[in-house]
Amino acid sequence: MSAPLKNDVLLRALLRQPTERTPLWMMRQAGRYLPEYRATRAKAGSFLAMCMNPEYACEVTLQPLERFPLDAAILFSDILTIPHAMDLDLAFEAGEGPKIGKPVRTAADVDALFVPDPAKELKYVVDAVALIRRELGGRVPLIGFAGSPWTVGTYMVEGGGSKTFARIKGMMYGDPKLLHRMLDVVTRATTDYLNAQVEAGAQAVMVFDTWGGALAPAQYREFSLQYMARIVHGLTRERDGRRVPVVLFTKGGGRWLAEMAATGADALGVDWTTDLADARAQTAGKVALQGNLDPCVLYAPPAVIREEVAKVLASYGHGHGHVFNLGHGIHPDVNPEHAGAMVAAVHELSPQYHR
Amino acid sequence: MSAPLKNDVLLRALLRQPTERTPLWMMRQAGRYLPEYRATRAKAGSFLAMCMNPEYACEVTLQPLERFPLDAAILFSDILTIPHAMDLDLAFEAGEGPKIGKPVRTAADVDALFVPDPAKELKYVVDAVALIRRELGGRVPLIGFAGSPWTVGTYMVEGGGSKTFARIKGMMYGDPKLLHRMLDVVTRATTDYLNAQVEAGAQAVMVFDTWGGALAPAQYREFSLQYMARIVHGLTRERDGRRVPVVLFTKGGGRWLAEMAATGADALGVDWTTDLADARAQTAGKVALQGNLDPCVLYAPPAVIREEVAKVLASYGHGHGHVFNLGHGIHPDVNPEHAGAMVAAVHELSPQYHR
Repeated sequence: MSAPLKNDVLLRALLRQPTERTPLWMMRQAGRYLPEYRATRAKAGSFLAMCMNPEYACEVTLQPLERFPLDAAILFSDILTIPHAMDLDLAFEAGEGPKIGKPVRTAADVDALFVPDPAKELKYVVDAVALIRRELGGRVPLIGFAGSPWTVGTYMVEGGGSKTFARIKGMMYGDPKLLHRMLDVVTRATTDYLNAQVEAGAQAVMVFDTWGGALAPAQYREFSLQYMARIVHGLTRERDGRRVPVVLFTKGGGRWLAEMAATGADALGVDWTTDLADARAQTAGKVALQGNLDPCVLYAPPAVIREEVAKVLASYGHGHGHVFNLGHGIHPDVNPEHAGAMVAAVHELSPQYHR
Repeated sequence: MSAPLKNDVLLRALLRQPTERTPLWMMRQAGRYLPEYRATRAKAGSFLAMCMNPEYACEVTLQPLERFPLDAAILFSDILTIPHAMDLDLAFEAGEGPKIGKPVRTAADVDALFVPDPAKELKYVVDAVALIRRELGGRVPLIGFAGSPWTVGTYMVEGGGSKTFARIKGMMYGDPKLLHRMLDVVTRATTDYLNAQVEAGAQAVMVFDTWGGALAPAQYREFSLQYMARIVHGLTRERDGRRVPVVLFTKGGGRWLAEMAATGADALGVDWTTDLADARAQTAGKVALQGNLDPCVLYAPPAVIREEVAKVLASYGHGHGHVFNLGHGIHPDVNPEHAGAMVAAVHELSPQYHR
């Protein structure tokens, strides 16, 4: 039905199959550091308008591929599409981050939640996936994504970003059953949403657990990891005769990698606070690993970027199953040429680890 | 010279000596959650004015001891007294956190730094320590403190708080020698400063590395831990015939506890993202451990607080060398009665672990 995939290095690496070099992409590769992204953003009028318009979403998704020889496209969207689809009044205020106008704090608020129909409330995302897939023409695979239920839940309960997660943790310790009820709805919504992305053409999916690292170990297991595991089990894992790899990423979750691997995910994202050698030892070949250059390395001169790329590659070491990435999203004030230096260094330095 | 110490449970626990129960204090125990603190703050006019006035600093330091049977007082001050003493134009703007008006970004900025004389530029802190010690009358020991060079350095370079540490990391990757030169000055200043606190009466000292956890492991070792180790080695470790314990705390440093213990510190602070059982295994009895209730537990009802206190005590388990604390500072909107419930639970539940 669609064009054959010309570059499947990412998909093979995510399944720990042999590759001739280490594939790479960048979290938030379609982002503000690119002038062409800022131009589309200006045309669209707002961040949310850009997310909700499949043409714009497709345009910015493809932009970084025009600049750099990356091995994947990632759907341009936001982790808060689900609360938006749940009518919780999402807005992005300039310089303030996301706001949820109708936060979820009481039993009545949780009762009012529903599982959005991806074909209806989230149709704009599904349409974007299909359009991007068509426009990619098989150049590289397309990654779909969603936030983890815990992470999306923090915004739903706090009403926006938070440093301390006081409200959701107050609910977690004070009324854990209520929080579980909320996370259950978000988990079902997320599973349907990711499956709709796969159905529309996403060839791998990633779950971003940006705030799981703020939890104590027992709470991480109970309120974040458990729900990510349910998503992994509910996902369509094969499509068009090919396995659809699933990647879990908990920022600050470096001590929990073995437990994350036990969910059955194919790969784990690793941030820069954990060495890949350590991550590899913890996960003992059960999963591929994706990461983990400190995004701030891209502020340094290209020669330093090359050295730091070399260290990340050496830390993973010989063998397959490594997807090079930043340890978090690329910062908006990074010089695109520095991103290019990173990409070039991975292309140049990684083949030796695959011989 | 001063009144004999009536309650030395904290000092013994920090040295892993036998105690009949687990001592406790709370990070930021003299803080905004107490109405009496807010009253003093209003009298003083500003946070900085309160820090710089020994009578006010003494007043708020003693306030939590009037409410709760805590086992230590901690000097009321701020980790940014050192950049303030270096004339970097420190200000606390309402709701915005600290600002450094003259940030350190160039070689010339670093050249202009000097090691403040604690008897001069930081006399107000030394005077506060002496006054608090006198007013305590031997009730409990007084803990002195400073920020880690890396953590204080982040404010000095960024010019305030930061989410990404883009500027200091840009310097770290782009001009590491310059950053080392800056950290060297801050380290010498911090060592002198802590020794002056000990000289004035502090009976234990703690180094707060709030932002070390944002570093990759190699950078943590080179730019944070190395300088904390230098401080540990430069400290006065005995005073009035008694050992002065030193505690290191890197928030988010749960994977580096063994390396932190190797500095020669007597005790390590542990945040709630690491189980104390894990921390104890990592450090193999080399150090005492201080922590680590999630401060958000204090939003829950007292019965839940008691259960969570029980879990922390059980996680450390039997034996000495545990100082109960929160895993980070108490939040400003916590009900003081909930802090009281935590304190009562530690008093009630901890003796069984010391039999």
